[in-house]
Amino acid sequence: MRMYDIILKKRRGFELTREEIEFFIHGYTAADIPDYQAAAFLMAVFFQGLTPRETADLTLAMAASGDQADLSAVPGRKVDKHSTGGVGDKTTLVLVPLVAAAGVPVAKMSGRGLGHTGGTVDKLESVPGFKVDLSPDDFVAQVRAVGAAVVAQSGNLVPADKKLYALRDVTATVDSIPLIASSVMSKKIAAGGDAIVLDVKAGSGAFMRSAEDAFTLARAMVDIGRLAGRDTVALVTGMDQPLGRSVGNALEVREAIDTLAGRGPADLKELCLALGGQMLTLAGAAPTPEAGSGQLAALLADGRALAKFRDMIAAQGGDPRVIDEPDRLPRAARQETVPSGAAGHVTAIQAEAVGRAAMLLGAGRRTREDRIDHAVGIVLHKKTGDRVEAGEPLATLHVNRTEELDTARRAVQGAYTIGRVLPAQSPLVLGVVG
Amino acid sequence: MRMYDIILKKRRGFELTREEIEFFIHGYTAADIPDYQAAAFLMAVFFQGLTPRETADLTLAMAASGDQADLSAVPGRKVDKHSTGGVGDKTTLVLVPLVAAAGVPVAKMSGRGLGHTGGTVDKLESVPGFKVDLSPDDFVAQVRAVGAAVVAQSGNLVPADKKLYALRDVTATVDSIPLIASSVMSKKIAAGGDAIVLDVKAGSGAFMRSAEDAFTLARAMVDIGRLAGRDTVALVTGMDQPLGRSVGNALEVREAIDTLAGRGPADLKELCLALGGQMLTLAGAAPTPEAGSGQLAALLADGRALAKFRDMIAAQGGDPRVIDEPDRLPRAARQETVPSGAAGHVTAIQAEAVGRAAMLLGAGRRTREDRIDHAVGIVLHKKTGDRVEAGEPLATLHVNRTEELDTARRAVQGAYTIGRVLPAQSPLVLGVVG
Repeated sequence: MRMYDIILKKRRGFELTREEIEFFIHGYTAADIPDYQAAAFLMAVFFQGLTPRETADLTLAMAASGDQADLSAVPGRKVDKHSTGGVGDKTTLVLVPLVAAAGVPVAKMSGRGLGHTGGTVDKLESVPGFKVDLSPDDFVAQVRAVGAAVVAQSGNLVPADKKLYALRDVTATVDSIPLIASSVMSKKIAAGGDAIVLDVKAGSGAFMRSAEDAFTLARAMVDIGRLAGRDTVALVTGMDQPLGRSVGNALEVREAIDTLAGRGPADLKELCLALGGQMLTLAGAAPTPEAGSGQLAALLADGRALAKFRDMIAAQGGDPRVIDEPDRLPRAARQETVPSGAAGHVTAIQAEAVGRAAMLLGAGRRTREDRIDHAVGIVLHKKTGDRVEAGEPLATLHVNRTEELDTARRAVQGAYTIGRVLPAQSPLVLGVVG
Repeated sequence: MRMYDIILKKRRGFELTREEIEFFIHGYTAADIPDYQAAAFLMAVFFQGLTPRETADLTLAMAASGDQADLSAVPGRKVDKHSTGGVGDKTTLVLVPLVAAAGVPVAKMSGRGLGHTGGTVDKLESVPGFKVDLSPDDFVAQVRAVGAAVVAQSGNLVPADKKLYALRDVTATVDSIPLIASSVMSKKIAAGGDAIVLDVKAGSGAFMRSAEDAFTLARAMVDIGRLAGRDTVALVTGMDQPLGRSVGNALEVREAIDTLAGRGPADLKELCLALGGQMLTLAGAAPTPEAGSGQLAALLADGRALAKFRDMIAAQGGDPRVIDEPDRLPRAARQETVPSGAAGHVTAIQAEAVGRAAMLLGAGRRTREDRIDHAVGIVLHKKTGDRVEAGEPLATLHVNRTEELDTARRAVQGAYTIGRVLPAQSPLVLGVVG
């Protein structure tokens, strides 16, 4: 088998066999196939696409390229969850203890990555003492004992995807639906879950700007799950404004605590119940997603979800007092208010611009070497549909370094559109693909 | 400027600026732009194409990437000639002395390359003593003195094309019309001619199998010439059977001598007069191509063309006695006849298969390191339309090594189709693009 022939076959629009796809992934991971052949292949895939079968074979070949988590020692069906990412998305922080409180074990591996804020494990590291680098045995033992654990994913999880993603990033081949879908799903499959709930974001703050593209991506990932023997359901959800009110690592942990205590922002709560209901259904712990959401709402109301978060924090070496005394989380030196320049209704908040402002304050990583400042970020006082007076605070910036403060302030102010007419509210959950 | 943005722009189907194309060629030649980005770019070009303006800019940027011949010391308009290559194509061997005999100086640089036989300079090296590595000064001096010279092209002629072609060859991006056109034309422009006559082959023995593709390629190259300020005319010509009767280096020199002496095969003579007529017209030495062809036919008839070849051989250190005593050219140890298995008319000869047989006998190079055997090759006794009896010789193989003799014999025999009905003859010159 020769890589040249595989490139040519795909360039001509033919369907590759599983053997050809495995030849490519094995050879590329082992550096037997050079970057330039992989780059030509990826661009051919961009133009010719991959069938669902090819995409599933690519996903499984990538998943098998490195370490794969073994969760067989954890009893029951393990359900994983993934979001394609958006500004202020802290659903995993809420869902892990919430679903565990319903008796469904959650063994969550999560990445760090680049972005407006850190990833889930970066956010949890805001909690003093919290450890995200458990051994595989300790990870499984904690899930058995407490019902929930969140760890940083192994450095050798899906090395094929790491290498391919780095190449796509410099060859303008990132935004291909089958390549995005296989990248996400290969990590989910290597992470060992039996079933997967996906949150595919659509809107100005998401990678997929249009709902149509988001549904296409959701369909591609659900198809992979089906062909790979993993029950998979995807919600397509709106990311036209930040989710909840907080953007920043410690600020988001604080908002997750509020939500687990039943007093979180309505949109965040709604989304967590929708996703959690699907997770419970796939785990066999609820007859329907709606019934599952109902069970979970009760756990938020009676304190059991919050108690589970406390137990998980304690088990991972974190200071559980943050649950009742959230001021023990890192706090920024200064708070700067962003006032509204006009009176009216908030008709839109550009999530992307708010995320960029958080990045400017130091909440995220531009490069892998960047250090995250856990304390900094943004809290929004006004969201879409809210009434605002001129001079009234739109948001508060939590600031340690001041070099780019003015730019960040202008970005937040510019993110808001204030109009005369109350806008029609679009639903948060745009649809379910399963 | 970033290569990433240039890849993305082309991937999205936009027209690149001259500056962007020059950035790519300069950066890639200097190895500042890595192979993997160039590979992704080439595949994007394969799918999105290049406009005539982009193709011309690419050609000129490549032509400027290395040495460029300076023919200003040779008086008059210098007309270059190029063929896209076919089996038995020895037109350059005939045209250089023929056009020079008409008073138009011909300063010809030629490559060696891979193929069924060697390139023009390999063929000329069959002549004992013939030197193809003249210094630029000696090259120009010979053209001034004799009117004709053929040299091996400089190793640093269009290094950008050398590097890009090697990359295209391993990334399945060879067969893109604008990339083929710019590759050919960059070498013609760097070779310093004022005008260019192209012979674009179409048929089973050519890179372009269909006449439609050949006309598209011809149009692309003529457009480049126009935009680059070089008068360019292309003939699209048939390559459904080998040109002339001989395939092999010394055998083709012998056939060129026959043709210059007025006793060559009809198809070779016809094509040389057609191409030569265009060359004379572009040089200003004939009012029309037809008039030019007439002048050249006279030079074949009265011996002046042959005399010019003798002078050129002598000037380049070759033994001029080969003109009158062609047995002084290298001769193979054995001659093997290929008999016809049936009686009838030759309805087709697969040029590709005949070429492969010549390669098996050692006439060509598979890799750059292969040595050519100048003596070996194939002489066809029957061509399309000829009557043949069962057992009558179709061809003679000129053989030194016998390892693959049986395979070569079967290839030649299999190349012939013998039928009952005399086939309709298609014209040799399918059209002119100018």
